[in-house]
Amino acid sequence: MNLPQPQYLRKVSHASHFFYNCMDQADDMNDTNIGTKRHRVVSGARTTGPLHLGNYHGALKNWVNLQSKYQCFFFAADWHALTTEYERPEYIQQYTHEMVLDWLGVGLDPKQCTVFIQSHVPEHAELQVLLAMVTPLSWLERVPTYKELRSKLKEKHLATYGFLGYPVLQSADILIYKPAFVPVGEDQVSHIELTREIARHFNFLYEARSKGPVFPEPQSLLTTASKMPGLDGQKMSKSYHNTIGLREDPKSVEHKIKTMPTDPARVRRVDPGEPEKCPVWRFHQVYSTKEVQDWVQVGCRSAGIGCLQCKQPVIESVLEEQAVIIKRAEPYQKDPSLTHDILREGALVAREEARKTLGEVKEIMGLAKV
Amino acid sequence: MNLPQPQYLRKVSHASHFFYNCMDQADDMNDTNIGTKRHRVVSGARTTGPLHLGNYHGALKNWVNLQSKYQCFFFAADWHALTTEYERPEYIQQYTHEMVLDWLGVGLDPKQCTVFIQSHVPEHAELQVLLAMVTPLSWLERVPTYKELRSKLKEKHLATYGFLGYPVLQSADILIYKPAFVPVGEDQVSHIELTREIARHFNFLYEARSKGPVFPEPQSLLTTASKMPGLDGQKMSKSYHNTIGLREDPKSVEHKIKTMPTDPARVRRVDPGEPEKCPVWRFHQVYSTKEVQDWVQVGCRSAGIGCLQCKQPVIESVLEEQAVIIKRAEPYQKDPSLTHDILREGALVAREEARKTLGEVKEIMGLAKV
Repeated sequence: MNLPQPQYLRKVSHASHFFYNCMDQADDMNDTNIGTKRHRVVSGARTTGPLHLGNYHGALKNWVNLQSKYQCFFFAADWHALTTEYERPEYIQQYTHEMVLDWLGVGLDPKQCTVFIQSHVPEHAELQVLLAMVTPLSWLERVPTYKELRSKLKEKHLATYGFLGYPVLQSADILIYKPAFVPVGEDQVSHIELTREIARHFNFLYEARSKGPVFPEPQSLLTTASKMPGLDGQKMSKSYHNTIGLREDPKSVEHKIKTMPTDPARVRRVDPGEPEKCPVWRFHQVYSTKEVQDWVQVGCRSAGIGCLQCKQPVIESVLEEQAVIIKRAEPYQKDPSLTHDILREGALVAREEARKTLGEVKEIMGLAKV
Repeated sequence: MNLPQPQYLRKVSHASHFFYNCMDQADDMNDTNIGTKRHRVVSGARTTGPLHLGNYHGALKNWVNLQSKYQCFFFAADWHALTTEYERPEYIQQYTHEMVLDWLGVGLDPKQCTVFIQSHVPEHAELQVLLAMVTPLSWLERVPTYKELRSKLKEKHLATYGFLGYPVLQSADILIYKPAFVPVGEDQVSHIELTREIARHFNFLYEARSKGPVFPEPQSLLTTASKMPGLDGQKMSKSYHNTIGLREDPKSVEHKIKTMPTDPARVRRVDPGEPEKCPVWRFHQVYSTKEVQDWVQVGCRSAGIGCLQCKQPVIESVLEEQAVIIKRAEPYQKDPSLTHDILREGALVAREEARKTLGEVKEIMGLAKV
């Protein structure tokens, strides 16, 4: 038997191609239906820090849209947080709870989707141990993000067994729910490819012992890249220190935007500026109406408005957006038992589904029942 | 922080040294006591084939001795069987049940020790995922048996993530019970050394977050090498095809011994032989009284007895030994529900202990409770 080459090494996948493919196949995947929603979606996020507006515009807004169309499982990946943070785990628990508050704040609705914490569904770990048996080491060593992250995060000791196995755990996280789709950003597509390879390899190995493919191959549901910039105009990212927190204190938000850089050519109030060279303009592109945008373009280029004036509508829009999120999260923040109930219930629902898959896998891999 | 070098690479451990050490330390380890037995022992065996007399004399007899002195946990390692047998798992379930029958046959007493199947205690998998985070890859790549087995078993595809992580899973199997001792053969000492290294590294990493060392370092309890030879005089081993099954049919046992080779110099009945060159003599050393041994020595060297005559007492002794084992296993063989009850109860007891350790580890590693 020759171990197949992972697909992402054979060809670069094109996003729309994936999406096209999955919509095609999805119509035949009746086995993943539950209730009135036909297809299942699984996604998670590592609990390594507070969420920011980049996360909101890049992923969470999309999750909120998906919850009404698909049967969604969203989990806070605390085990995955440990792959890089095991030497300093003191904030993981806090980040996990804050993340769930953020999710509820942006509008994830536990009546519409299943929200849980990864480590509350130990079946993921069991499936990880089993998938590990069939996963060639070389597939993991060649994952593009593996070497990149290891060299990026040199101050951490990432040459560990757990970090190398990140994509195996991720595959278990996904495959245990047999989802049709996994919403991901461009940088995660290769991981989903690996998940598909592991599914395919598993299906092939145990073809004779199962009635059909055990794992449907999940499709990447590529999230449109967010236009949300960081305070310095780069991508908003924790590691660039250019973020606005999802539920950050309004005073702090106002201060951050008021002090963010503008077009460097506008030294004095009377110097005209160029919006295309100004990070604030990119905020206007996300937050402002056509009317306000026109006001900015004209006012900036003619020096008719000052930078602080120009920033004011952005500040208002951001605070308005955050006010909704903060308000929605408030009851959960005041009464932690509400969140606990949601997470407990979420874990129950997730475990029930996870156990079905795990039982099937254990049977196929010849593990003894009592 | 410099990752420490595993101890087995720094110096070759001497068996009696270990034993000495552990008896010393053991007196201080009151925290592992349960009931009237002070110290805990954990061991397991991979369910990759039927047990034979070599396993009995090499390990099981020792386990039977230990069960009255220590609080013992013995598990059938079906996940570990998958590390090498994942491509052909069809016999694992059968081997697992046969192994438990063998254990009961040789006299493991569920009233005295806890017998269970590894995959029935999923907490082992959870701890494996967590220990993986702190285990440097290099420690695993340098495990002496890793490269050896990979090249020995070339027909299998062992360059998998699961096979590389064998010692991490084994460490989880052991550490989750915080045992004082692990009875092992000489070839397994390096694995226990690695388990001790992982325990030590974990204790060091989370020193500030725990009240004391989380994992006591388990000590190898070196089993005296068995004198039991295979039918050809080599070590009795499945891979040498020279075994006598633990509960093999008496006719088959008789046939095997009758046809086993003797001193090649004794071509004809009248040729004198030399016991030291005869595999049958090694059986006599295990099974025969001083009287019979003298009879063999004199009779062989003088050609006073023939080889078949010489083999007769061996056949009788082996069959006698097996008769006891077969009889003890019989009720369990007739009524599988007896074994099922034992394994269910064993898993319950094991899980209760495993959950305690896992809860502690999760807390220390910062995973969120609900």
